[in-house]
Amino acid sequence: MKKSRRRKNGDLFRRGKKAGLPPGTPVFVGEQKQQHVITDILHYSGEHLEEIHAATLKDCARLKNRPGITWINVSGIHDAQAVQNMANLFALHPLTAEDISNTAQRPKAEEFDDYLFFALKMLSYDEKANAVLHENVSVILTENCVLSFQEDREGDVLDPLRHRIRSGKGRIRREGTDYLAYAILDAVVDEYFVCLEKLGDYIEEIDEQILTGPDAGHMREIHRLKQEILFLRRAVWPLREEIAALEKSETRLIRGATRIFLRDLRDHSVQIADMVEIIRDIIGNMQDTFLSSTGNRMNEVMKMLTIIGTIFIPLTFIAGIYGMNFENMPELKWKYGYFVLLGLMAAVGVIMLALFKKRNWL
Amino acid sequence: MKKSRRRKNGDLFRRGKKAGLPPGTPVFVGEQKQQHVITDILHYSGEHLEEIHAATLKDCARLKNRPGITWINVSGIHDAQAVQNMANLFALHPLTAEDISNTAQRPKAEEFDDYLFFALKMLSYDEKANAVLHENVSVILTENCVLSFQEDREGDVLDPLRHRIRSGKGRIRREGTDYLAYAILDAVVDEYFVCLEKLGDYIEEIDEQILTGPDAGHMREIHRLKQEILFLRRAVWPLREEIAALEKSETRLIRGATRIFLRDLRDHSVQIADMVEIIRDIIGNMQDTFLSSTGNRMNEVMKMLTIIGTIFIPLTFIAGIYGMNFENMPELKWKYGYFVLLGLMAAVGVIMLALFKKRNWL
Amino acid sequence: MKKSRRRKNGDLFRRGKKAGLPPGTPVFVGEQKQQHVITDILHYSGEHLEEIHAATLKDCARLKNRPGITWINVSGIHDAQAVQNMANLFALHPLTAEDISNTAQRPKAEEFDDYLFFALKMLSYDEKANAVLHENVSVILTENCVLSFQEDREGDVLDPLRHRIRSGKGRIRREGTDYLAYAILDAVVDEYFVCLEKLGDYIEEIDEQILTGPDAGHMREIHRLKQEILFLRRAVWPLREEIAALEKSETRLIRGATRIFLRDLRDHSVQIADMVEIIRDIIGNMQDTFLSSTGNRMNEVMKMLTIIGTIFIPLTFIAGIYGMNFENMPELKWKYGYFVLLGLMAAVGVIMLALFKKRNWL
Amino acid sequence: MKKSRRRKNGDLFRRGKKAGLPPGTPVFVGEQKQQHVITDILHYSGEHLEEIHAATLKDCARLKNRPGITWINVSGIHDAQAVQNMANLFALHPLTAEDISNTAQRPKAEEFDDYLFFALKMLSYDEKANAVLHENVSVILTENCVLSFQEDREGDVLDPLRHRIRSGKGRIRREGTDYLAYAILDAVVDEYFVCLEKLGDYIEEIDEQILTGPDAGHMREIHRLKQEILFLRRAVWPLREEIAALEKSETRLIRGATRIFLRDLRDHSVQIADMVEIIRDIIGNMQDTFLSSTGNRMNEVMKMLTIIGTIFIPLTFIAGIYGMNFENMPELKWKYGYFVLLGLMAAVGVIMLALFKKRNWL
Amino acid sequence: MKKSRRRKNGDLFRRGKKAGLPPGTPVFVGEQKQQHVITDILHYSGEHLEEIHAATLKDCARLKNRPGITWINVSGIHDAQAVQNMANLFALHPLTAEDISNTAQRPKAEEFDDYLFFALKMLSYDEKANAVLHENVSVILTENCVLSFQEDREGDVLDPLRHRIRSGKGRIRREGTDYLAYAILDAVVDEYFVCLEKLGDYIEEIDEQILTGPDAGHMREIHRLKQEILFLRRAVWPLREEIAALEKSETRLIRGATRIFLRDLRDHSVQIADMVEIIRDIIGNMQDTFLSSTGNRMNEVMKMLTIIGTIFIPLTFIAGIYGMNFENMPELKWKYGYFVLLGLMAAVGVIMLALFKKRNWL
Repeated sequence: MKKSRRRKNGDLFRRGKKAGLPPGTPVFVGEQKQQHVITDILHYSGEHLEEIHAATLKDCARLKNRPGITWINVSGIHDAQAVQNMANLFALHPLTAEDISNTAQRPKAEEFDDYLFFALKMLSYDEKANAVLHENVSVILTENCVLSFQEDREGDVLDPLRHRIRSGKGRIRREGTDYLAYAILDAVVDEYFVCLEKLGDYIEEIDEQILTGPDAGHMREIHRLKQEILFLRRAVWPLREEIAALEKSETRLIRGATRIFLRDLRDHSVQIADMVEIIRDIIGNMQDTFLSSTGNRMNEVMKMLTIIGTIFIPLTFIAGIYGMNFENMPELKWKYGYFVLLGLMAAVGVIMLALFKKRNWL
Repeated sequence: MKKSRRRKNGDLFRRGKKAGLPPGTPVFVGEQKQQHVITDILHYSGEHLEEIHAATLKDCARLKNRPGITWINVSGIHDAQAVQNMANLFALHPLTAEDISNTAQRPKAEEFDDYLFFALKMLSYDEKANAVLHENVSVILTENCVLSFQEDREGDVLDPLRHRIRSGKGRIRREGTDYLAYAILDAVVDEYFVCLEKLGDYIEEIDEQILTGPDAGHMREIHRLKQEILFLRRAVWPLREEIAALEKSETRLIRGATRIFLRDLRDHSVQIADMVEIIRDIIGNMQDTFLSSTGNRMNEVMKMLTIIGTIFIPLTFIAGIYGMNFENMPELKWKYGYFVLLGLMAAVGVIMLALFKKRNWL
Repeated sequence: MKKSRRRKNGDLFRRGKKAGLPPGTPVFVGEQKQQHVITDILHYSGEHLEEIHAATLKDCARLKNRPGITWINVSGIHDAQAVQNMANLFALHPLTAEDISNTAQRPKAEEFDDYLFFALKMLSYDEKANAVLHENVSVILTENCVLSFQEDREGDVLDPLRHRIRSGKGRIRREGTDYLAYAILDAVVDEYFVCLEKLGDYIEEIDEQILTGPDAGHMREIHRLKQEILFLRRAVWPLREEIAALEKSETRLIRGATRIFLRDLRDHSVQIADMVEIIRDIIGNMQDTFLSSTGNRMNEVMKMLTIIGTIFIPLTFIAGIYGMNFENMPELKWKYGYFVLLGLMAAVGVIMLALFKKRNWL
Repeated sequence: MKKSRRRKNGDLFRRGKKAGLPPGTPVFVGEQKQQHVITDILHYSGEHLEEIHAATLKDCARLKNRPGITWINVSGIHDAQAVQNMANLFALHPLTAEDISNTAQRPKAEEFDDYLFFALKMLSYDEKANAVLHENVSVILTENCVLSFQEDREGDVLDPLRHRIRSGKGRIRREGTDYLAYAILDAVVDEYFVCLEKLGDYIEEIDEQILTGPDAGHMREIHRLKQEILFLRRAVWPLREEIAALEKSETRLIRGATRIFLRDLRDHSVQIADMVEIIRDIIGNMQDTFLSSTGNRMNEVMKMLTIIGTIFIPLTFIAGIYGMNFENMPELKWKYGYFVLLGLMAAVGVIMLALFKKRNWL
Repeated sequence: MKKSRRRKNGDLFRRGKKAGLPPGTPVFVGEQKQQHVITDILHYSGEHLEEIHAATLKDCARLKNRPGITWINVSGIHDAQAVQNMANLFALHPLTAEDISNTAQRPKAEEFDDYLFFALKMLSYDEKANAVLHENVSVILTENCVLSFQEDREGDVLDPLRHRIRSGKGRIRREGTDYLAYAILDAVVDEYFVCLEKLGDYIEEIDEQILTGPDAGHMREIHRLKQEILFLRRAVWPLREEIAALEKSETRLIRGATRIFLRDLRDHSVQIADMVEIIRDIIGNMQDTFLSSTGNRMNEVMKMLTIIGTIFIPLTFIAGIYGMNFENMPELKWKYGYFVLLGLMAAVGVIMLALFKKRNWL
């Protein structure tokens, strides 16, 4: 389970310390999530499987060109040197090395001469804070290797995929590197649905609460959720176009059969973008309802004052009249004056109430 | 008649339990709507008609390649195995099998080598809850078969179509599988108009009520309707583009004559998207009017308090003056002091009222 | 003059009764506007002119292929059989026949092999209700005939065109069927400007009233106008694209010289769409101003209460003090106590007023 | 200086009287701005310059085909016959003649076989009314003539251009008709910057006033400015696309060197459209601030009432208690009862104030 | 450090004084930021480096065509003659000269026959005013020179770049003029991230303050920030498209290897545009929260008045009753009348409070 951490707006902008450096310098700008950089290698073909945990750069160099498919997963991108070494080994463009380390990177897919580069966000839902946590994932697809870089591999969404490779279930062992890269992206994107489902449920709960009894805490929560959605959109929206561009690109690194899977992935990303928009609109509705609701309650309260005031102010005035000390006030001497007046006052009160009732104020 | 069920926002996101499975695994993520999966076959040509209710997989295999047109309707998609069997029989791509079972599927049209796949929503209006019910429908068009998958066939909108095939009315018996697929889509989309008409009438009714006497219940209803529209848009908007893409595609599965009908279908889906937008705007206007209305009523109430207060507070003060117990208050001893004061008070009250009238406050 | 009739939202959705019928079945879904279907024929060439009022189907068949230009105008589309007969005579596609009868049809232009089909709205302004009335018009352009279908020909906008044909004024007698079709569309669209001008004037009037004295009736009127604009947009927006598509199409039915006129028509429809948007924004501004205005008036009213309350409540308290019946209250025995107190009260009141003045509350 | 005139919404829609006329009939629909139509001719080449003020149609015919460049400026378009004569002389399309007279014309650029037609708005800022005045300008570019039509030439923005031609400054005398047409458009568009600058300054002034002391007049001014912007947008937005279309068109009337200037003009029109949007957003912000501001002031006022009321209402109640006339009220007989009570009241008041202070209400 | 200066809306529109001048006349329309125009030259190749501070026009002419790369930086564009001289030396198009001097220039990239022209904004964050300062930068890329024009070179963002050239670090000394031009743009754009990060942090701070205790000053700050964003968007939005156009252009001045860097630059500009939108939405949310917050506080205040009023007004009335001077008021003579009444009053008060509690008003 990822550690819950309260996001700050400023996080979005933590690129600043890079300014002034030459383009293509990898600099880690995020928050370090695990202590050491750990590299895992999974080398496999239809019949064969080899797994190296905590691999060295030498292991990578050795397996890089061996027949079969090599998946190198680097977990921990805060060590710029480690990223640079790996980039050198695979002859990555300096800008790619820079993008891998940049946790504020916008999702993108880029073609280079010898490889494809994907950057996207791995989302996970923090059940305690009811917040969505963002993590940067980069995937590089070459002729016979797939490199993946992530911030923290503990409890990640790629475990079921690793398990499928080990067990040989599904089509993954029969397909190429392009399918492996797709499978990684698919696993990451599938988790988005889980996050959105949980977020959706939470929002529904808040919505229910606001309809029954809105309070100032809900205002703060709506404010937070709106911010949350702003960040979610940023993680999700570009994906759609990037995958579509990839699907249409003529790179030889992606074979025809895998393009159908990419189409499906694009379809999912469109669906997710839709969902985020719907959640956004739901939060908007929630806010409108919150405002109407508190407005309604206030109106009720004020109406009470108005009714009480409107009935008693005139009556108090009448009582005030007969509290005056004029010497010549004939009514005061009438035997039943007091009782007549009480009756009169009661009548005025009843008439007022009737009027309010008639005008639908009660 | 479909059973009325209150929709939850979360339903939109019930895809989550799929995460971690390999792509192309059919998993039912919705709510089961009928007990058993029932497969019906309608095999026909210009002169010939054969109908099998509760058909087996063997029936399907037998009729699949026989000359004429075979319509296989599978009702109930909660049984992943049944869907998988059918997919195997027709050599469907694993992703298609997955999409058929996914009740949260976004409307789409996809070309594969040997078949076309359509997913869309069947809408029906729940007169009791004044809500629109959504059901997933998938249609697969092959050389000489049409497969359709739905969640619950009871009281569905395809019955008139089945009747038309049986009776040989219209052009359906003379046309190919592409026309049959079109006719299914058309029947589903035509029902949208019915739903929107009923929803429109209901909204008009609420609108009328709000103009005459808004209450807190209307606020809740507006809230619900706005949510309803969010879901409706999602079911309706993608349709337009998907049908347009199909109309322009070069698949040999759709003949020229049917393309004119597809153009008409696109036109209908554009019209429906327009209507949904108009309904959305009407609900927006309704909310504005609700807010103005309740604001107006509050203003009226407060004005009442203000007028009463403004008249009686000064008068009460005057009465208070003459209720003081100073020993030397000459007015108290005047013979007609009391009556003069009463007159004065009446005059103040009348002048105040006149002022209010003049300033248009009454 | 068209009869004024209050539009209902639901009218937009009166397509529902069609659901279940085979595609291509003409069904009238609107409100019948004249009793009988009347067909008029105008047959002309440069030198020649023949006019038949209340023509029969035979007349149509006879004139259909005769050299020259034949304009057949069918007024009254509620009789599905009459529409069907005409469609059969001219070998129209079943979907065209369906669209002609459908009063909820969205404006569109469609190319068929032998003819072009246009559907648009004829607008007229109801001066009594200050509402825009919508009527469906369909125009079919074939090699040497123009067919037009309308709901009610009384007082329509085509009369000046008929007159121009009869008198031989302008270029119309020298041009082909494409120019005639253009001239019909142009006459319909020109009337939009008249409607928008009148609507614009009416809105200006309401705007003026709101600035001087807003009341609850204006809220209702704004609500109605916003709905009105929703329907207007729907009638007007699609036109632009449809005419642009036509202008670019390669149909041989439209000659080069006429395309310049179509460009002008597109320009007009763009202008109209612009105007409708401007009117919409004006109504939006009007609503904002209405809300500010009523808010302002309320504020004024409440300020009054506050000022009166703030001055007299403390004074009344002071009077209350000296109305107490304590035995030992030395001030009560002072000879000029009463007058001193009155002076004090006046001073408090004056100071309060001065404070209000200073804080700009008066 | 143009005469200041208050614009009305309806002006936008003054096309109505054209309805029913054949297309291509020039009808003046605006407000006449000068008494007589005046035609000026400037005929020039690199070395030669001839100028005719108040030229006749014969002068135009004479200079039309003479070598060199002829600029014919017609000022006053209310005389349909004059426009028609000129149109005939230059063999303009009837629709062009119609567009020249139409003051409600949307900016556009149209290619014809022998000429290019531009319509745009000449804006000027009315310093007294702080309003932008709109005037229609049409420019026609032929092989060796440029025709320009405007509503009123007094104090117009073309004078500096005329001066440049006369003095032979700049490149204008060395370039062709296309550069002259560009120079006219450029002069008109440059004036937009002046208008927007002045409008921007005025809006800033209002903004400042609203921040310091908002009153009901500002609401009216915001309302007016929003309307102003609606009209401005309409004058400015289409320009961008029209110039872009021109820049890309393959007409032989515009040479390569002039296209670079057109690109610059497009850049200016994009910039102007941007500015109008920014002004629009600034006015929107202004309105939000106005509402918050007046809301704030109201809140302050109401808080005052609440504080006064909350302190004195309970105190008045206590005074009321001891104003009762019960025979047996022991406190009344206490020697220092009155003073104790006064102290108590003071204490209550002070405590209340302290509470308010603590809760940040003061 | 740049001097902090409060921006005015009008600044955006300071182009006005240009109107009437022939196109292509350089006129400085901004605010002069440094006293003298200073030209610096950096001439370098792989091995060689020459630097001239405060260079003359002759130096420029001398180095212009010498082998190697020449970077001429002109700081101070308020001297139109200096700009014109440089433009003449490099045979720049008059419109380019005009654009260089125009501080209100929108970001753009333009291809000419012999050079590319870029205009963009250099942003810097003023920590005191929490405002973003804008400065105009123009870059001209020719075969073997790069010209850059800026308003004020003190403390600018190009210093690290100059340092990299001097020290020979990074790839800059090995690349051509296209890479140098890219490096300048990249340095300018990287600074945007710094500005946005600081602005984002400041906005977060304000947001926090509003959640805890909103006051009228926050309203003003929100107003200012919204204006700030309007200007920021204008500086940032066009960049994206301009760089994309450049990336796709076929100019021989940009080599393939540099295009990959341009792609990265476009990616950054997209990211910045995204961030600006997010900041804008955050400010929008902030305003909503500000309004809810102040609304909430007002409600609290009014509730107080209502509760106090509702409890004491009836009690005061009762006290008023027994303050009347009727001769025959039996209760007054009861021995414990006073105490009974006090008890009664206490009971009424307690019941009222209980009711309020029950209705959740306390």
